[in-house]
Amino acid sequence: LTHDMMVAGVHWPPGEDAADLGWKLVAAAASDLAAMGAQPAGVLCALALGPEAGGPWQAALVRGMGQALGAFGLALWGGDTVATPGPTMLGMTVVGHCEAGAALGRAGARAGEGLWVSGHIGDAGLGLAMVQGRMPKVAALVKRLRRPVPRLALGAALVGRASAAMDVSDGLLIDAGRLAAASGVGLEIDLDRVPLSDAARALGLDPLAAVTSGEDYELLFTAPAGARLPAGVTEIGRVVAGAGLQLVAHGRAVPLPDRLGYEHAV
Amino acid sequence: LTHDMMVAGVHWPPGEDAADLGWKLVAAAASDLAAMGAQPAGVLCALALGPEAGGPWQAALVRGMGQALGAFGLALWGGDTVATPGPTMLGMTVVGHCEAGAALGRAGARAGEGLWVSGHIGDAGLGLAMVQGRMPKVAALVKRLRRPVPRLALGAALVGRASAAMDVSDGLLIDAGRLAAASGVGLEIDLDRVPLSDAARALGLDPLAAVTSGEDYELLFTAPAGARLPAGVTEIGRVVAGAGLQLVAHGRAVPLPDRLGYEHAV
Repeated sequence: LTHDMMVAGVHWPPGEDAADLGWKLVAAAASDLAAMGAQPAGVLCALALGPEAGGPWQAALVRGMGQALGAFGLALWGGDTVATPGPTMLGMTVVGHCEAGAALGRAGARAGEGLWVSGHIGDAGLGLAMVQGRMPKVAALVKRLRRPVPRLALGAALVGRASAAMDVSDGLLIDAGRLAAASGVGLEIDLDRVPLSDAARALGLDPLAAVTSGEDYELLFTAPAGARLPAGVTEIGRVVAGAGLQLVAHGRAVPLPDRLGYEHAV
Repeated sequence: LTHDMMVAGVHWPPGEDAADLGWKLVAAAASDLAAMGAQPAGVLCALALGPEAGGPWQAALVRGMGQALGAFGLALWGGDTVATPGPTMLGMTVVGHCEAGAALGRAGARAGEGLWVSGHIGDAGLGLAMVQGRMPKVAALVKRLRRPVPRLALGAALVGRASAAMDVSDGLLIDAGRLAAASGVGLEIDLDRVPLSDAARALGLDPLAAVTSGEDYELLFTAPAGARLPAGVTEIGRVVAGAGLQLVAHGRAVPLPDRLGYEHAV
């Protein structure tokens, strides 16, 4: 079970499309199921609607939520709706299931294992720069920001294969640091191996920018050498004894940037 | 599974004790488990903390939540915490369990059955009048408002005995109307039989005021004639063919009041 919250003005800017918000609310919470290798079951939806959330806005929100629920195989079981004089807030409880004891966690990484990530990293960060007007828009990258697809099938396939897993929501480096801390190990990450999409390469995306931007909702996981892994994943480093992160590029150590990703205020 | 939300300024006034809020957040959500006859399991806690919710306030909130979780046998499994510039909002997902198919619902009432309620009705409404300064305070009644105790044991005992059940949160009449609508029946309620506490009787509480005030968190349920019911419940009426509510006092029909209880804005 997981619960995620989003606040107007904090987690989304004014004017954001409500259908995209509805999708993202479901996708972000479902990504936590993916990280645990759980099968999706259903959701409870918590809506605190402010004065700015009128009928058409609510209809769009529900349409986007419905599209995501259908796409990810989640049932809408219930929830609560209240009026608020303050900013609109959206909350979602997502429930999944797996075999007893089989859920993936963050604490199982062991020195000598490999570090892997799914898909491409940095696309959503480029999409954010585009919707903030800092770059010309590329539709596929904006879609990666606004309509993320949690890696549910991959997460389920990693059960029994990965030793630790989490989803990349705040940035690959900051999330990798959390996995390392939970497992009591260090992680060495090779920036040359971080998988970038063709669209990101065409825009000259720096791997260091890619690993410090958030909302990719890919899976980051560790696995023993020789583990049979699904397609679409890339080995980007290894688990080492010790603690913290070590970055490498072109075979040489790279200092950690000051900012590893999105730091929550609370 | 159930989710309940509370918003500062809407569901509680400024200055309300945070420990009482923490208790009530858990109790109100757990009362929905009681209404379904479910055994309590655990919760996810959703906190959106506004500028007014400082460290001491948060500590008191968590203390009250912890007291309620312990009292009702619920584990704290997780949740989410965010900062908000607007009013503080508290949400809680509560999870319970019961035998497959055994959960109590609102739709099973049948004409000819009796209508019952647990405990006393109207105490919390008196407590609200007291904290709003409309009456001198009586500690036991203020406590009924601020530290409600969901009827979990009773709800579990009603499984297989009650035909329909719900908790009285918005007012006995408005909630009875919802049960009647869900079951497709009418309900006849005898105001002379509505159970009032000694404290409420001493203050001269009008039964019509008692059945239109909220937050008692007692259980309202229907059961066939001759059903073996637990102690502490009072038969206040019967299920009839048709629809809606009929009030009786001193053997004569009484018109329904304009206001049946607390109507949510959304």
